[in-house]
Amino acid sequence: MTEKGLLIVVSGPSGAGKGTICKQLLKDAKKINYSISATTRLPRKGEQDGKDYLFLTREKFLEMRDDSAYLEWAEVYGNFYGTPQKNVEEQLNKGTDVILEIDIQGALQIKKKFPEAIFIFIVPPSLEELATRINRRGTDSREVIRKRLHSASKELEYVSEYDYVVINDVLDMAVERVKAIITAEKCRPHRKQINFN
Amino acid sequence: MTEKGLLIVVSGPSGAGKGTICKQLLKDAKKINYSISATTRLPRKGEQDGKDYLFLTREKFLEMRDDSAYLEWAEVYGNFYGTPQKNVEEQLNKGTDVILEIDIQGALQIKKKFPEAIFIFIVPPSLEELATRINRRGTDSREVIRKRLHSASKELEYVSEYDYVVINDVLDMAVERVKAIITAEKCRPHRKQINFN
Repeated sequence: MTEKGLLIVVSGPSGAGKGTICKQLLKDAKKINYSISATTRLPRKGEQDGKDYLFLTREKFLEMRDDSAYLEWAEVYGNFYGTPQKNVEEQLNKGTDVILEIDIQGALQIKKKFPEAIFIFIVPPSLEELATRINRRGTDSREVIRKRLHSASKELEYVSEYDYVVINDVLDMAVERVKAIITAEKCRPHRKQINFN
Repeated sequence: MTEKGLLIVVSGPSGAGKGTICKQLLKDAKKINYSISATTRLPRKGEQDGKDYLFLTREKFLEMRDDSAYLEWAEVYGNFYGTPQKNVEEQLNKGTDVILEIDIQGALQIKKKFPEAIFIFIVPPSLEELATRINRRGTDSREVIRKRLHSASKELEYVSEYDYVVINDVLDMAVERVKAIITAEKCRPHRKQINFN
């Protein structure tokens, strides 16, 4: 019997570097897949439909939501985001690990439905650094940046809901820590079948 | 304030390869120390007093035990083994990680006194392989080997008391798994001081 894959939920305040960490992780790891989220927001420069996100119309998104097709969904700054459930479950059953990069609302929903998932909270080294990173991205208006920073400082309080917290000070080290967490979780007794007879 | 060190308890049936894994780990890791056990058994070929074990007389061992000087102690095959408590605590308070390589009885005692320690169960890939390893060591009589094998197969039932189980199939991979466990445990929210203000 194939050992079931791990569902790894990478979450944390916007601007903490979740996306960069996940991209690096997928480049390095072999048997790990990205769960692609569906969203109603417009693509940012360079983002591809079906690769970075499933870019859906509001109508299509809500139709799927009403069919319970999402593992979690949320409305953030007026846009909808969701994780199509079927695809994730198929991969886990095949023994593939799946990474979900989602905001905190989404992570908390998953925690209720999938308590066996691994919840990793990515934090910036400081709020000052977070502000710098959001500004550097240059895609958001001043008002959106202010909102993001305010909500980030509140969101940090959710850290205790998570299994692990990874401080994203140096990218390579943060990625190594996430890899170590995945390796360690595969050594949990309840995930192992040990038969000696 | 220095973050407190981790107490890492490496345990499992005799012959699973605990000692080899710990030696390799200490060679690779920087800020990690071995807790040296006290014992009343005679040194094996090449073992040094104060390095591999504190070799004590039965009288001295029991005197310290009665002074509550051990974090755990046990009588195994007629010999006493114990972990001097003071040394371990001093190192943890300095921020040094401490590895304890002990049998299952000892690990269960530590679990009661130090639930915040990390409990790792090392298992051989199979009972056949365990028998081969014990025979290869060539230091034990046939009767002792039989006893060890019998108790090993019973001891494997304790795996669920542990936080992690590491199958010692390929030494380097087993060591990497233990390192990953240590890295991951340092990312636990309750071990971290995160202040953003």
